[in-house]
Amino acid sequence: MSSYGARSGAAAGYMMKMPPLADKRAAAEALCSTCSGPIYSQGLNTFKVPMAMFEVNRAKVVQSMLEQDPSAKGLILLEGGKQQTRYDTDHEPVFRQESYFHYLFGASQYSDCFGTLSLPDGEATLFVPTYGVDVATVCGASPDFEFVKVELGLENVHDVVDVKAFVEREMKRLDETEIESSSSDGLNNEEKKGGGEPATKSKLYLLKGLNTDSGNFATPASFEGIDKFRDVRDDESLFRSISESRVFKSSAEIDIMRYTNWVSSMAHVEVMRAAKPGMMEYQLESLFQHHTYTHGGCRHMSYTCICACGPSANILHYGHAGRPNSRLLEDGMIALLDMGAEYKCYASDITCSFPISGSFTDDQKSIYEAVLAAQIKVMAMLKPGVSWLDMHREAEREILKGLIGCGVLDGGGKDLDEVIETMLDADLGAIFMPHGLGHFIGIDTHDVGGYSPGKPARSERPGERKLRTARQLDEGMVVTVEPGCYFIDPLIDAAMSDERQKRFLTERVNDFRGFGGVRLEDDVRITSDGCENLTLCPRAIEEVLDVMSGGSWPPATDVLPEMKRKWATCKEGRMEFLDM
Amino acid sequence: MSSYGARSGAAAGYMMKMPPLADKRAAAEALCSTCSGPIYSQGLNTFKVPMAMFEVNRAKVVQSMLEQDPSAKGLILLEGGKQQTRYDTDHEPVFRQESYFHYLFGASQYSDCFGTLSLPDGEATLFVPTYGVDVATVCGASPDFEFVKVELGLENVHDVVDVKAFVEREMKRLDETEIESSSSDGLNNEEKKGGGEPATKSKLYLLKGLNTDSGNFATPASFEGIDKFRDVRDDESLFRSISESRVFKSSAEIDIMRYTNWVSSMAHVEVMRAAKPGMMEYQLESLFQHHTYTHGGCRHMSYTCICACGPSANILHYGHAGRPNSRLLEDGMIALLDMGAEYKCYASDITCSFPISGSFTDDQKSIYEAVLAAQIKVMAMLKPGVSWLDMHREAEREILKGLIGCGVLDGGGKDLDEVIETMLDADLGAIFMPHGLGHFIGIDTHDVGGYSPGKPARSERPGERKLRTARQLDEGMVVTVEPGCYFIDPLIDAAMSDERQKRFLTERVNDFRGFGGVRLEDDVRITSDGCENLTLCPRAIEEVLDVMSGGSWPPATDVLPEMKRKWATCKEGRMEFLDM
Repeated sequence: MSSYGARSGAAAGYMMKMPPLADKRAAAEALCSTCSGPIYSQGLNTFKVPMAMFEVNRAKVVQSMLEQDPSAKGLILLEGGKQQTRYDTDHEPVFRQESYFHYLFGASQYSDCFGTLSLPDGEATLFVPTYGVDVATVCGASPDFEFVKVELGLENVHDVVDVKAFVEREMKRLDETEIESSSSDGLNNEEKKGGGEPATKSKLYLLKGLNTDSGNFATPASFEGIDKFRDVRDDESLFRSISESRVFKSSAEIDIMRYTNWVSSMAHVEVMRAAKPGMMEYQLESLFQHHTYTHGGCRHMSYTCICACGPSANILHYGHAGRPNSRLLEDGMIALLDMGAEYKCYASDITCSFPISGSFTDDQKSIYEAVLAAQIKVMAMLKPGVSWLDMHREAEREILKGLIGCGVLDGGGKDLDEVIETMLDADLGAIFMPHGLGHFIGIDTHDVGGYSPGKPARSERPGERKLRTARQLDEGMVVTVEPGCYFIDPLIDAAMSDERQKRFLTERVNDFRGFGGVRLEDDVRITSDGCENLTLCPRAIEEVLDVMSGGSWPPATDVLPEMKRKWATCKEGRMEFLDM
Repeated sequence: MSSYGARSGAAAGYMMKMPPLADKRAAAEALCSTCSGPIYSQGLNTFKVPMAMFEVNRAKVVQSMLEQDPSAKGLILLEGGKQQTRYDTDHEPVFRQESYFHYLFGASQYSDCFGTLSLPDGEATLFVPTYGVDVATVCGASPDFEFVKVELGLENVHDVVDVKAFVEREMKRLDETEIESSSSDGLNNEEKKGGGEPATKSKLYLLKGLNTDSGNFATPASFEGIDKFRDVRDDESLFRSISESRVFKSSAEIDIMRYTNWVSSMAHVEVMRAAKPGMMEYQLESLFQHHTYTHGGCRHMSYTCICACGPSANILHYGHAGRPNSRLLEDGMIALLDMGAEYKCYASDITCSFPISGSFTDDQKSIYEAVLAAQIKVMAMLKPGVSWLDMHREAEREILKGLIGCGVLDGGGKDLDEVIETMLDADLGAIFMPHGLGHFIGIDTHDVGGYSPGKPARSERPGERKLRTARQLDEGMVVTVEPGCYFIDPLIDAAMSDERQKRFLTERVNDFRGFGGVRLEDDVRITSDGCENLTLCPRAIEEVLDVMSGGSWPPATDVLPEMKRKWATCKEGRMEFLDM
């Protein structure tokens, strides 16, 4: 066995000096910005992920834990995702790491692991399964711990069978260690208590908390015998720290999301160029997946592709097994394609809408412009301090304005702003945009932290209640901005028999039945004084028509700076900004 | 509620005459052969699956149940696959139906269902989830039962919330019904008991049994309150009947597998043409997936693509998340690509091996020819009555012969056949082919029924113990034939220090370290007097080199009739045979 219990330079019970946490984080950030240290890449021109990005993540979580409790000591213990089989068979879907575990350890290629972080020093240890020659013949050589340490940039790697013994030993060692929390940075010194009284008991921090999108709970790590620690386990603190850390992206995380957005944007453009009447919706899905995998090394999509053409677009999460992108593309349809690839488990989430035939009808143009106006309006307002709920209402306003403009809604000749407020009060926005304006995005497409304790609660109003967060925005958040406008029969019919709503609807609405819908969706990061659009898709009508007729992309000049697109490309595995 | 308790033309307790089971099966088979009745298709030129195929499957299972117990009556109850979420998130992987459930109901597009078959009449009932407008806006309109009946060719479709009430009512009705088992076909008449004595209790047949590839058990259907039937539940009979039925494919099942083989074979050819030094292995995976989806409508692969080039091929199940097809293709490497697409949940499983550079070295040619000889040898022998274990040994013989031929093994100048038997006795075959010759294939890639009670047990010898069945072959079975030859360092090293083996190994073996391996894999159905190869890939060396340099495929003439390829193509959604 390796000497997993011994800590370099310090036997348990003696004075310990660890490198200050802030220093570790700064060092990791430096590695990220120079893209040095261990790198993950899919080769060729795919993005080079500095594994130090996960060291930064770890430092952020440890720091947050110490902010919750400056005298915190103990072990953070997480269990990684397990390799699944399909029902009772030996069919194994491609493993995708559990997102919290990935956030801390970056171990996307290893299933059935455990991982620990020591508090307060933040030392990381990964436990991976090993196996004999028989399995190795089928799956490849059993992991070599030294290799994995270098590959993932981790301090310690051991066999998963040793996790229990490690936890027992470390908890005991920490029990005997007194933490001094009075140093200048307040967080990082650890010292043997000098005299008579016993040190405080160390805690075992496990992950448990509600995912507010699914209603499911994160499952705390478990191994046989963990019950022994029931008196010192803490199921609360870790979830708060890690989910809140994930809300605020580091520079390195922004960079990888810039890459997934770049890859996915270019794939959307390829799909726009290829789409023709006579094709099937799933052929657009297939092309997108092929482009992002073969050119971007993206093996997983962030979510199931929604390739909704014509009336299909009335189903917001079209594309699942029951509605498997199987409509024939016909002349005159609008395509609404919501597709995004992930890389090293970081997501993109992008929607483009365009006319299959290559030209917009007047009605299509009206709706497209309304949605685009909503997007531009929100982009202009996004900055630290604004409320996401307010942004949602702004988008609704623009869409209602567009619907008045094309005669679907009757403004009654009154003051436009006033009538729109009346419409909003009547929940009319949710008839045409029955989903939220957008959501946090990161390792999960619907990323965590939307409704945390102490943050604004979910609204109960139609439309607004679909929002995955109602928080104030702040620097480092990444949100999708995805206004849409749809003509969904049951919702229109409901509005037509709703006293508050029916007076605004005109006969014109019937012209739009079967139209489907338009959605535009970009991934946007909040900066210190505004926002930056990571998505690089054609948005102006002239851009859409131009690429569909073979025009180059990205364009020579940005005709729509209001979209805040930060033009970039991947060169030799790194994102470079373009002058435009 | 719909009248789910009432049976057409027969109220409970009255004399019942159902159409004889044999007639129902014959009618379904007729629909299959004319491709009439309800059809599943992905549009364009994708295959038209007659949904009557699943009616045939149901009739086979009911017939088998009645062969086990001619007086069997009751309900077969299965639970379909559930829509999964990824860990605690709301990320939903594309639903893939559970295989047993799919075999009986063909409901690949509906998750979270139940299904029943009545015994002895075989009447089928599907229970699907329904939902309100809120979910419909996201997922599409709630299922319309009449539509689903027509879509799937089922007699009855109800709401899943009614499954419990249905089971209770049907079990009670059947309790009061006496089965007459003396009719000419012995299987299909059902009659009210005339007089005094009570009818026999009906049984609830649930699915429980071991998957001998995974070691997992099928999970019996369950709903709240099912415990009420504990005294009449039968967990044994159904598994025997359904797994054994799945071993023997109907004509319609052969036809859909002919299609998946055709699509996947053409995709392999496209990949062969595209593969070049400087590409990444995963780009071959991406291209294969794209081809089979966009041209074949195949959304799912049968299994994770194994794109193993050069040394990668020493890992038999290369391509999983830990070995993610991420090697750079280099001149001089052999590519071993094991990839197959599925359609309507029916699998294909195909391996091609070819030189990345477009020409074989002498050593590569030797190994390729040895493996091809093994495949041809087995094809020549396959027919009802032969033992699969014997076929495995035949393949080993050919590979050992090839290794003697190129000097890796020392035949000692003795009688070739004799020395090969000595090598087999020393388990030397398993050093170079450390996997089984092949396996059943159908709805699962590793299809069920390999080791059933009363059939030959698993061998304990190296190599042979990896076989997924040791049965005698019979008409209607479909097996993969996949001999291979690899140079796996730990196995070679083990052989070099094994008293029985090391005397046969020469220094030449070291020339092959890092070579990787060659595998050729075809899907083959057993006919009444031989076999038919469903796979249509280039196999002769001249065929491989020809398509790699741009030659057309399929070829004008079949230069290798020994491969038993039955040439076919898909036209207007049906498989047509080609003259050659």
